[in-house]
Amino acid sequence: MQSGLYTDLYELTMVQGYFLMGRQEEIAVFDYFFRDCPFGGSFVLFAGLHNLLETLTKLSFSEPDIAYLREKGFHESFLDYLKSFRFRGDIVSAMEGEIVFPNEPILRVEGNLIETQLIETLLLNFLNFQSLIATKATRIRLAAGDRLLADFGLRRAQGLGGIHASRAAVIGGANSTSNVYAGRQFDLSITGTMAHSWILGFDDELTAFRAFAALYPDHCTFLVDTYDTLNSGIPNAIIVGRELAKEGHRLTGIRLDSGDLAQLAKRARVMLDGAGFYDVKIFASDGLDEFAIEKLLREGAPIDGFGVGTQMVTGRPTAALNGVYKLSSLNRIPRIKISENATKTTLPGVKNLFRHLDEEGFFQQDEVVLATESTNGEDLLQMVMKDGSVTLPTSSPVEIQKFAQERLAKLRPMYKAPTSAAIYPVTISESLQQLKTKVISETKKLIQK
Amino acid sequence: MQSGLYTDLYELTMVQGYFLMGRQEEIAVFDYFFRDCPFGGSFVLFAGLHNLLETLTKLSFSEPDIAYLREKGFHESFLDYLKSFRFRGDIVSAMEGEIVFPNEPILRVEGNLIETQLIETLLLNFLNFQSLIATKATRIRLAAGDRLLADFGLRRAQGLGGIHASRAAVIGGANSTSNVYAGRQFDLSITGTMAHSWILGFDDELTAFRAFAALYPDHCTFLVDTYDTLNSGIPNAIIVGRELAKEGHRLTGIRLDSGDLAQLAKRARVMLDGAGFYDVKIFASDGLDEFAIEKLLREGAPIDGFGVGTQMVTGRPTAALNGVYKLSSLNRIPRIKISENATKTTLPGVKNLFRHLDEEGFFQQDEVVLATESTNGEDLLQMVMKDGSVTLPTSSPVEIQKFAQERLAKLRPMYKAPTSAAIYPVTISESLQQLKTKVISETKKLIQK
Repeated sequence: MQSGLYTDLYELTMVQGYFLMGRQEEIAVFDYFFRDCPFGGSFVLFAGLHNLLETLTKLSFSEPDIAYLREKGFHESFLDYLKSFRFRGDIVSAMEGEIVFPNEPILRVEGNLIETQLIETLLLNFLNFQSLIATKATRIRLAAGDRLLADFGLRRAQGLGGIHASRAAVIGGANSTSNVYAGRQFDLSITGTMAHSWILGFDDELTAFRAFAALYPDHCTFLVDTYDTLNSGIPNAIIVGRELAKEGHRLTGIRLDSGDLAQLAKRARVMLDGAGFYDVKIFASDGLDEFAIEKLLREGAPIDGFGVGTQMVTGRPTAALNGVYKLSSLNRIPRIKISENATKTTLPGVKNLFRHLDEEGFFQQDEVVLATESTNGEDLLQMVMKDGSVTLPTSSPVEIQKFAQERLAKLRPMYKAPTSAAIYPVTISESLQQLKTKVISETKKLIQK
Repeated sequence: MQSGLYTDLYELTMVQGYFLMGRQEEIAVFDYFFRDCPFGGSFVLFAGLHNLLETLTKLSFSEPDIAYLREKGFHESFLDYLKSFRFRGDIVSAMEGEIVFPNEPILRVEGNLIETQLIETLLLNFLNFQSLIATKATRIRLAAGDRLLADFGLRRAQGLGGIHASRAAVIGGANSTSNVYAGRQFDLSITGTMAHSWILGFDDELTAFRAFAALYPDHCTFLVDTYDTLNSGIPNAIIVGRELAKEGHRLTGIRLDSGDLAQLAKRARVMLDGAGFYDVKIFASDGLDEFAIEKLLREGAPIDGFGVGTQMVTGRPTAALNGVYKLSSLNRIPRIKISENATKTTLPGVKNLFRHLDEEGFFQQDEVVLATESTNGEDLLQMVMKDGSVTLPTSSPVEIQKFAQERLAKLRPMYKAPTSAAIYPVTISESLQQLKTKVISETKKLIQK
């Protein structure tokens, strides 16, 4: 989505204003941060950065884009400017896959007033969504332990949002996706079994399983709930499993997709083991999320893998991360947005973000500091784009997943609880607090009484 | 999204199976329907049809698509088939903008077994999402009455899902969108005001308003909550409004974006009226949805227009419509999916959908019948695609919105309540019930005991 039109109208209106006032060389700094963690949790897994950076390098206004804006009354001089527009700013950011917390400046954009304003909507659209889904997938991965986890969500995804949803699901911990398009675009592992319609496409279930086995003798995971899981599906799977074995092949698994999954899985395990199929896996799907998976495993369901769709790719029920993009400095002068709600007042100035580890190597506390300050700890923000060129080495979603898991291992369990998690401490340095107090005071003087 | 890869892997696996078995000329019929209404309501506004049809006419496998599938082990003969694949089936559907209910066959696909199966994921992805958002927008429109309603959601939309979300929001009743890209693509009205960053981009609020007024003297809707709504924002807006009036222009409005919107709107109205600005409009935004709008208006807030973002474009909290696509006939023989949950057992055979009106012209009851039956009432399903060519005349989102509003006017208020709405009656004909009983009985005979 590299069209300059992929934005809110007011961005273009404001940017034209700056242009017509001759302010295009002024230097602005914007921060990206969010205020609340989704899903009642205590962290966010930051995702979407690589897609954002790649899109920014291509962001431009085509001839049809320009023609449309002309029709909408934009000025010819501004349209001339847009014709050769390219984003040439700098971006300093946490790594994709990092664990981040409310009110932390996760990403900072520095550039001229026009380019930094113009990318707001695009940036928020990309980062808010993928961070939401990667966070949801992380929660589901935490519930599932080391069992297989496949994204099945494309049919319920929010339209074309399904493309990035599958990428973010893998970053958060899914082993694979059913989404072939995303699989190719982002080099994700793609998996799938069969639908009920395959079974209905034959005169009976046994015939349907046999036909599938003849075609894919080494990739048989039979969907067993089309007619009757225990009385038809599993017995038929066992019959065909035996036939496969005679031919030197091996039944891979069965998939449960309705009913009481815990009870069905237990019965299925007994039936499969009774037939000597100790290594045939049991997969489960059917509206699962982190809470349903946790419950199934607590009940002792012998499930080897989960297919998760709707809940993961839509980030239900939160459905949106409320990340914002706020001006923090203009022409090197700190700026602030004051709110009657004190927690919504922004942090002025150019800032960095450090993480302090405890003696056991766990994350202990984060600290937001002025960029001019030095402190101990991990420096979480790195230059990822310089003068509009990406300086961050490319990482695949699978590599980002690995990094995310390493980071997650350093987050204490109290912060990983699905609900009522502890609040991770984020402090701001004394110098930053002093700056904030000073800028608030200066700003309030300007307010008409 | 016309790539044949925009699907779940198992669709391709199954379809290859049918192809290798030589079943590509078998005739299948699939139904699209949903089981539950989103948001605790009692209806769905059907949307996404035109996009789906247009995409189906372009659906194909490019050389890179084919190469990817080859890499994944698909058979060469099947890949040859896919190279020239085009959807050539028929589609019979309710009109886009129609009010529909659970378990109704809203859309029916007829064609060969391969093409009808292959489009499942794409079809569900398009129709589920736009119907969800159009339904949410309808609910918000119902709450807002005839006040202005603008979509502000792109920054919080689910990634690229934001494109279709804005289209569906307009179908459901939004007057305009901030999404410029969707505005161009679907010919939607685009609107916007200004961001807090515009105010922060100047030394003080008054200067910021004056600068905007100098640039856009006839399009000034000032955002008044950057520093202090009542003590700074509105007084400054009035100052600049007077300056505009002296120059022969007119202040359009103010926008409230935080705080107690009902109280602020009342105070703002008094202040504006006191300055003689009786026709200056008050707009409100800030996490609004149908419930918040209803509450504001119940409290007597004098608000003229609403900007709604996150809640509308993500369809929060439901976030997904659970529509499904089920085989109902194969080679002219009715098929059924039995479920242990009787309400999830599908309706077999080729069906039509009729709507009966009461003596006052309101929707009274819908009836699902066999396609061979005739009945009175409105025939809701029309041929919209024949042999892969669209037969439905093009309608713009604004035209579809108009149709939807006409239909909605015929839905009694008891079905429009935001929660605890009455359940609209949907019956099935006696012949269809008999067929269902017969097919269930035949199917159960096949289940292994």
